[in-house]
Amino acid sequence: MKTAKGLVIVNTGHGKGKTTAALGLVLRAWGHGLKVAVLQFVKHADCGEHRAARRLGIELVAGGAGFTRSDEDTDRNRRMAVELWGTARAKITSGNYDMVVLDELSYPLGYGWLNLAEVMAALKSRPAHVHVVITGRDVPPELIEIGDIVTEMAEIKHPLRKGIKAQAGIEF
Amino acid sequence: MKTAKGLVIVNTGHGKGKTTAALGLVLRAWGHGLKVAVLQFVKHADCGEHRAARRLGIELVAGGAGFTRSDEDTDRNRRMAVELWGTARAKITSGNYDMVVLDELSYPLGYGWLNLAEVMAALKSRPAHVHVVITGRDVPPELIEIGDIVTEMAEIKHPLRKGIKAQAGIEF
Repeated sequence: MKTAKGLVIVNTGHGKGKTTAALGLVLRAWGHGLKVAVLQFVKHADCGEHRAARRLGIELVAGGAGFTRSDEDTDRNRRMAVELWGTARAKITSGNYDMVVLDELSYPLGYGWLNLAEVMAALKSRPAHVHVVITGRDVPPELIEIGDIVTEMAEIKHPLRKGIKAQAGIEF
Repeated sequence: MKTAKGLVIVNTGHGKGKTTAALGLVLRAWGHGLKVAVLQFVKHADCGEHRAARRLGIELVAGGAGFTRSDEDTDRNRRMAVELWGTARAKITSGNYDMVVLDELSYPLGYGWLNLAEVMAALKSRPAHVHVVITGRDVPPELIEIGDIVTEMAEIKHPLRKGIKAQAGIEF
């Protein structure tokens, strides 16, 4: 099923729900029979979304940067992010996918590991039916500018402030 | 799988992504093997989430208020919302579910069709492991107050403003 107009959807802000809302779009798109790929630029181990994606047959690649501990880790993370972006660009520009999610893309951009102009060029030159969903704090203004739907998730309350631990099925 | 502490999660605000983020939580919870029910207080016909829920075996009841056209419709919608809330309360308080989503609950509350004190009482008396997810614009301050995670989705850009039609797999 091809859509008339592929959208750039940006979920940003410092609140919860950026990745989660992207997963909701994935579920909805999957329900409509759209072909979806999810690329996670910040690695989360053994998340609910990974298990769900496996069970649904949705392509999910978590090859991005983890939390850095040393210069060696940083260099490895940088290389992983660059490689993941190459994969993402190929998927976006191929036209083989109806929706490509670039989860936490703002992190490798913020670290300077990816070139913003290159990302913008890939988005602008993509086939017309391809939706691209971008999440992360502090998404660069250039991406906000080309976004068709831009939502800022603002944190009003967070359980970690109340001393409640992160939980499977909620936070990850 | 029982969780240590059931949370009240509220997605509010006038931006996109409130229901979508709730669906993302559903997908994640489903991935973790949690038992989930979704109750939609505003009916959407033939949505991607309905098709996905059917395919995933997630219980989704869309019996709430549609858009009202006449006094007769209003009365019917009110009765449907009251009935749906009865179903919701039973699911929340039974302890049979790990997560119950009350999608667009703020509408029947705002119309005065449901009693806020009754909703609060059901939430407060629920078994400890039950997560409840509430979405909708203008969620009453009392629900915000008991929320563990509260996110405001603020609209920065919306495609309908740019003359782009709502699309299957994105908006519904």
